Amino acid sequence: MADDKKLTPRATDFSAWYNEVVLRSELADYSPVKGCMVIRPNGYGIWERMQRQLDDMFKATGHQNAYFPLLIPESFLHKEAEHVEGFAPEAAVVTHGGGKKLDEPLIIRPTSETIINSMFAKWVQSYRDLPLLINQWANVVRWEMRTRLFLRTTEFLWQEGHTAHTTHDEAEEEARRMLGVYRDFMEGYIAMPVITGRKTNAEKFAGALRTYSCEAMMQDNKALQAGTSHNLGQNFARAFDLKYQSEEGTTEFAWNTSWGVSTRMVGGLVMTHGDDNGLRVPPLLAPIEMVIVPIYKTDEERALVLGAADRIAKSLGAWDLRESARLRIHIDARQGIKPGAKYYEWELRGIPLRLELGPRDLAANQGVLVRRDTRAKRPVSLNTLGEDVADTLSAMQRDMLAAALDRREANSVRQHISYDAFRELMDGQGGFVYAGWCGDAACEAAIKEETKATIRCLPDEEFRSAEAPTSCLKCGRAASDEALWAKAY
Amino acid sequence: MADDKKLTPRATDFSAWYNEVVLRSELADYSPVKGCMVIRPNGYGIWERMQRQLDDMFKATGHQNAYFPLLIPESFLHKEAEHVEGFAPEAAVVTHGGGKKLDEPLIIRPTSETIINSMFAKWVQSYRDLPLLINQWANVVRWEMRTRLFLRTTEFLWQEGHTAHTTHDEAEEEARRMLGVYRDFMEGYIAMPVITGRKTNAEKFAGALRTYSCEAMMQDNKALQAGTSHNLGQNFARAFDLKYQSEEGTTEFAWNTSWGVSTRMVGGLVMTHGDDNGLRVPPLLAPIEMVIVPIYKTDEERALVLGAADRIAKSLGAWDLRESARLRIHIDARQGIKPGAKYYEWELRGIPLRLELGPRDLAANQGVLVRRDTRAKRPVSLNTLGEDVADTLSAMQRDMLAAALDRREANSVRQHISYDAFRELMDGQGGFVYAGWCGDAACEAAIKEETKATIRCLPDEEFRSAEAPTSCLKCGRAASDEALWAKAY
Repeated sequence: MADDKKLTPRATDFSAWYNEVVLRSELADYSPVKGCMVIRPNGYGIWERMQRQLDDMFKATGHQNAYFPLLIPESFLHKEAEHVEGFAPEAAVVTHGGGKKLDEPLIIRPTSETIINSMFAKWVQSYRDLPLLINQWANVVRWEMRTRLFLRTTEFLWQEGHTAHTTHDEAEEEARRMLGVYRDFMEGYIAMPVITGRKTNAEKFAGALRTYSCEAMMQDNKALQAGTSHNLGQNFARAFDLKYQSEEGTTEFAWNTSWGVSTRMVGGLVMTHGDDNGLRVPPLLAPIEMVIVPIYKTDEERALVLGAADRIAKSLGAWDLRESARLRIHIDARQGIKPGAKYYEWELRGIPLRLELGPRDLAANQGVLVRRDTRAKRPVSLNTLGEDVADTLSAMQRDMLAAALDRREANSVRQHISYDAFRELMDGQGGFVYAGWCGDAACEAAIKEETKATIRCLPDEEFRSAEAPTSCLKCGRAASDEALWAKAY
Repeated sequence: MADDKKLTPRATDFSAWYNEVVLRSELADYSPVKGCMVIRPNGYGIWERMQRQLDDMFKATGHQNAYFPLLIPESFLHKEAEHVEGFAPEAAVVTHGGGKKLDEPLIIRPTSETIINSMFAKWVQSYRDLPLLINQWANVVRWEMRTRLFLRTTEFLWQEGHTAHTTHDEAEEEARRMLGVYRDFMEGYIAMPVITGRKTNAEKFAGALRTYSCEAMMQDNKALQAGTSHNLGQNFARAFDLKYQSEEGTTEFAWNTSWGVSTRMVGGLVMTHGDDNGLRVPPLLAPIEMVIVPIYKTDEERALVLGAADRIAKSLGAWDLRESARLRIHIDARQGIKPGAKYYEWELRGIPLRLELGPRDLAANQGVLVRRDTRAKRPVSLNTLGEDVADTLSAMQRDMLAAALDRREANSVRQHISYDAFRELMDGQGGFVYAGWCGDAACEAAIKEETKATIRCLPDEEFRSAEAPTSCLKCGRAASDEALWAKAY
């Protein structure tokens, strides 16, 4: 599966470490198409679990799935002035089809606000048809210059929610609700804590009224924008004539939202939890939760140990009748590979638990359970293995979130910082800096120019500092907002 | 949801009926992009259930999901001689990306044999790396001139399995195994009986050694090719240098298969089961299995009946703790719409069961249960409703398959037929004709030219006639095969 060479340590070169982990744990591979990646089964297994969980959460909040065309007439992009500015430069353009030049070029969707709202306009007549709550699982293409596996690829997989409402406030509530769903998912499943907040005008989605985002801190102290949710106002409704007849009989434009998360989250998972031995996958997203590695010398011992492993896998795989409580177990029965080499491989792949099982263990009715996160080993009785494994997995899920949270807070600056000190910090170890902002886009642009740090968001209340900063980090004028500054992916 | 106009009867114009059912039951809609459709939530809900079930079946047969790029270098298509002939004329070509003309045009995948086998070549070194059993859920684009909702669209959703093996026989076994999985799914879930068999050389996949297919008969007696499975031989392995070192130390080309089914199956479901009142969805694929329609006159009655409906939905929705046994129930609580109008809508949408519930029913501790397939009504006790509904749904699933099978056999000709009689049949009511074929592509081409009927497949043994035909339908020479002839979608 993987060669035995040590990974480049994170401290030496975080970026090299990331690529090595992704490639050697076989999450993904480079493809022959520039900027496009192949998601291999180990990576797709994590994405599938993300999808399944998010899909359940979207349905629980009243959304239905649908599917809209991959190809969008170029003219659609031009109907919303900011939207075309943001997306036209990244477009992949289809000019020929079926051997002929097309009358109008088609672009591969970079996002689907235009085509979806053009359909909504056809479906919505009356306020009774609203709200319209739709989600789509799809691939999108944005022509990127510098690409990185999972983090920024020309094609990526995502979901995009698109909704239409009768009022601004209802759209705002929806945009905020889905941001909350994203946060719950990222913290509850990826064990990746996020700061939620509003984007500045310079950073908002092209065509949105307001953009909210989830910002996570990676182990190199850079921010990863892990999901966004937009209140689109009536911008797309006006562009695509999405109107409804109100209860009072007047004709009104609808209010839209859109929101999305992508395969980028897999990269976030790697950079949040990986260590110098490889990947560490949070149990809830692990395609395999526990691998059993049999230890033996003779054929007799092999038969004995594999027989026991099989019984354990069968009984724990169904130890509770509910599907959701079944453990996902794999027995590594490969021959000609030493146990140590197997340990190394499964650690590289980040499988949460390893059960080492040898003849002496069996004689004592026990096994040795090893946690991937702490690498702590302990003997466990086979009598109570089901509960023990389930408890350990729950503890790991909690501990991984807590560890990521501690790391983030240890690398966040909330006390007053001078601009010089801020520049030095951004040149060096980086991190999250909470500081005042005067609200002037010129200060925001100057800081970006000078330090490469950007305002990741204007954090929601619960993330703001106990004492609000009073002056702008850059110009010293009175602060209108507290801003979260960081360098970002 | 839908207007009250009657559907065009199937007997009057099957094609108009089909489009009306798809549009008015809101399975799909036309899009602003020529040849591309929008799959609406009612249609996508059926597709999701198809996906979930097939995905489970693929995993149970050892396959893993992965994801490969949407865009394929044009030169890849040219590496396999037959493949390029088949797919280049239908290609959608991306010539520009990020505002620049590309050095090499990219085509949007029409199918992924080329890109996937180029990656397999990178991953496979030794016989130990084989078999490689991969599936991908994806969208593909084929530039079609004449499109029909679900049946033939420029973009469609599908799964494509791609595998690599050490021997011809193992690839052959895999291709046949997956054909069997398709048949099990189509008969067990879509309740759509299929004839399986081998395609002639004229009809096989561009680049395959052998193609197998599932052929279903629609209600207009035309055949629908509902799924195909290919033994690709070593054609793609040679084109993409997919080699492995054998156990004996020699270097060999691998053997490939590929197999796919698509959203076309939703069209097959409609044309297999729909009637003049609309859609009929087999229970196992129905996003809603039972709708409860409350009947009331006063507000008091409304509260009473909706309260009871709610209790029923809650108890049946969880009447067995296993997720798989929960019933999918919807209560139609909309106000200002008469029960009759609601019945009409739910019949149009093909929801398997309707429970009518009024105050008098409640007083007698009963409801009225209506089957969508037979439209049979009967009173049912609320005490045993869970078992009753579950039994009825199972019976419907069986009955719908049996009815489709009866219809197919009633419209199949197995006795000797003269070519003149065959032409007359194909000009008229159509159907499946089992007849001898000399094996000469010229006879096959002449029949297609003269009657529009094609050899759908050379049926597998269990579908062949008790007495094998001895002479060719067209030329009268000795038959080498029994062929299934029909006009097809």
